[in-house]
Amino acid sequence: MKARVHIFYKDSVFDPQGNTVGESLSKMGFSKVKKVRIGRVIDLEMEYPSKEEAKRDVVKMCEKLLANPVIESFKYEILEC
Amino acid sequence: MKARVHIFYKDSVFDPQGNTVGESLSKMGFSKVKKVRIGRVIDLEMEYPSKEEAKRDVVKMCEKLLANPVIESFKYEILEC
Repeated sequence: MKARVHIFYKDSVFDPQGNTVGESLSKMGFSKVKKVRIGRVIDLEMEYPSKEEAKRDVVKMCEKLLANPVIESFKYEILEC
Repeated sequence: MKARVHIFYKDSVFDPQGNTVGESLSKMGFSKVKKVRIGRVIDLEMEYPSKEEAKRDVVKMCEKLLANPVIESFKYEILEC
């Protein structure tokens, strides 16, 4: 079983890395790019007997270690069972 | 139009951040997690007249700026049109 977690800054939080990359792309001629947001993607290979248990633990992992709930939000999906 | 790019270390390249997070999760009691890989996710808001042009430019952006082709591999998808 595999889970994929996406962690981004919340929309209200300034994303300096995304902003810098956006400016660089613009200078390189990619003027059709209007906005860039950069986050982390975390792939977890797991051995859970059920999708429900996996989901429950992935949320716990995000809240306790993977994401910073003050400035970041996370989304996850279970990819294989 | 929106593109999402995932950039990971190639499978043959050691992922120190993923390894550290994996060890931390194990110590925290999430023993069912067997492997962790961490990468970057880049969301691009773009204004292209066609999906084909968008795809072509996203590949160029990855090769020229977003990814390090020596140690990283990228995958992309066009999310909305």
